[in-house]
Amino acid sequence: MSRFSVTTLGTASAMPTVGRGQSAQVLSVHGRFFLIDCGEGVQNAMVRFKVPMMRIDSIFISHIHGDHVFGIFGLLSTLGMLSRTMPLNIYAPPAFGPILKFFLSYYGEGVRYEIRFTPLKMKEPEVIYRCPSVEVKAFPLNHGIETFGFIFAERPAPLNIRKEAIEKYSLSLAEIGSLKRGEDVRREDGTVIAAEEVTFRKMVPVSYAYCSDTAPFAEEVEWLRGVDVIYHEATYLKEFSDQAVSRMHSTTADAARCALAAGARRLLIGHFSSRNKDASLYEKECREIFPASFAASDGDVFDITE
Amino acid sequence: MSRFSVTTLGTASAMPTVGRGQSAQVLSVHGRFFLIDCGEGVQNAMVRFKVPMMRIDSIFISHIHGDHVFGIFGLLSTLGMLSRTMPLNIYAPPAFGPILKFFLSYYGEGVRYEIRFTPLKMKEPEVIYRCPSVEVKAFPLNHGIETFGFIFAERPAPLNIRKEAIEKYSLSLAEIGSLKRGEDVRREDGTVIAAEEVTFRKMVPVSYAYCSDTAPFAEEVEWLRGVDVIYHEATYLKEFSDQAVSRMHSTTADAARCALAAGARRLLIGHFSSRNKDASLYEKECREIFPASFAASDGDVFDITE
Repeated sequence: MSRFSVTTLGTASAMPTVGRGQSAQVLSVHGRFFLIDCGEGVQNAMVRFKVPMMRIDSIFISHIHGDHVFGIFGLLSTLGMLSRTMPLNIYAPPAFGPILKFFLSYYGEGVRYEIRFTPLKMKEPEVIYRCPSVEVKAFPLNHGIETFGFIFAERPAPLNIRKEAIEKYSLSLAEIGSLKRGEDVRREDGTVIAAEEVTFRKMVPVSYAYCSDTAPFAEEVEWLRGVDVIYHEATYLKEFSDQAVSRMHSTTADAARCALAAGARRLLIGHFSSRNKDASLYEKECREIFPASFAASDGDVFDITE
Repeated sequence: MSRFSVTTLGTASAMPTVGRGQSAQVLSVHGRFFLIDCGEGVQNAMVRFKVPMMRIDSIFISHIHGDHVFGIFGLLSTLGMLSRTMPLNIYAPPAFGPILKFFLSYYGEGVRYEIRFTPLKMKEPEVIYRCPSVEVKAFPLNHGIETFGFIFAERPAPLNIRKEAIEKYSLSLAEIGSLKRGEDVRREDGTVIAAEEVTFRKMVPVSYAYCSDTAPFAEEVEWLRGVDVIYHEATYLKEFSDQAVSRMHSTTADAARCALAAGARRLLIGHFSSRNKDASLYEKECREIFPASFAASDGDVFDITE
């Protein structure tokens, strides 16, 4: 199993369709599970796609439109029925606060775990979550109501010492410690052992961004620069760009241009309008601009390290 | 197409399972569509099972437990997106009022059709809906919180005159009118033409009851007497009767005994505990008591006139 993967649980936009649920994704990063958005049916999708629901560490809600949150009530209730005790973090726009309050006032009796709600208010990318293996930034999107995107970035692994260097230089424990911190060692005899020469990292950290829902906006590319894999909504085919503009969504071309300009390795697209059932049309339009584009389906698993 | 059928949209109990959604059914009665309960995913089930969502006349909510209502938010939103203008009736326990109010305060902007909410408060069966073809009664169930069952009964069709009688008696229009109202005709010469002799009904009215969630209770059989097809929850197999009692649910045996004592023609069961995936076990236990028992699956269509 990959150390960093994303499962697209729901890839439809607001209108219900056969075969596609509403927006939700789950990230598995170094054994931690993060849920992004909670479209209706998310708990069923997790059961169907074998996501360990009880191990969800944190939930990240992009905005409070129904197709991104109506599944959270059932999920929070079910976690209660399953006797969850581990606290659950929820990061969401401030408007989610009263929704959570409503839920807890009516359905909170069975919820015996702690819900730690953090309202998102930033105007530019800001770290909202950090653990030894991953750091999550949130940043505002452009969707009419308060909406946030998220970047999940692996944190650099600690430096390791090359075995042959230990022998070559007869490194002491203190020297190894310094080198692992990235500090060069200067010996009394004048020898300099460069950390760069004798250390290595076991992995190259990778990152993933979630951008839904949003119309293109000025800072988007700058904020996403360097992200390896970008998920970007592509609600409309190019021919419906008028609707994309008026409803503050993106077209395939918007998503692809963003991925291209940001220098991503791969683009995943979803949130497809119910008007066009054939997702390959969306993929094709993106690939004309950015070849490494992939239309997500419900239950797809993407390895972010690839 | 039958004049009276029920489609079981969701047949699971509270815990999400693969292949079964949460409680919801749709009745098609003489071209009108009635939705009973709105478990999460009901809008997707309607799309999947080709139920004409926009033609839903009324929604009947048994109780406010999440597995019976969490799908209503998405459904009401989607009807708004589909530009519904026809008013929508909702019959539900009073506790649903604040839930609806919450929904409309947050998501009501897109809901441009009128929602006519009727809180249910009866202590015994009471007619809550009547149109030329069907009458709906609600009655209290026994589930700890306010919960209601529903009986949908076809209204008797008007009487028709047998063609041969018109000729035989040279019936006048006035006489036909009287006979169609079921009134005997007494002529000046002393002849009596009995309505019973010269009239008939094109159909024998049938009825359907929905009983979920509930533990057995004293008046249940009496209230259901004469109903043709009963849907009754059977959350637990007999061996888990302790849980049925403590959680105020029914076992297979409870459901079957109720159908038998009420004189039903058929029993449909659902709301199966996620503990046992094989619904045929439930069906088998019911059939030991009441042979015409059927375990419902998602998407099943039952013809109530059969």
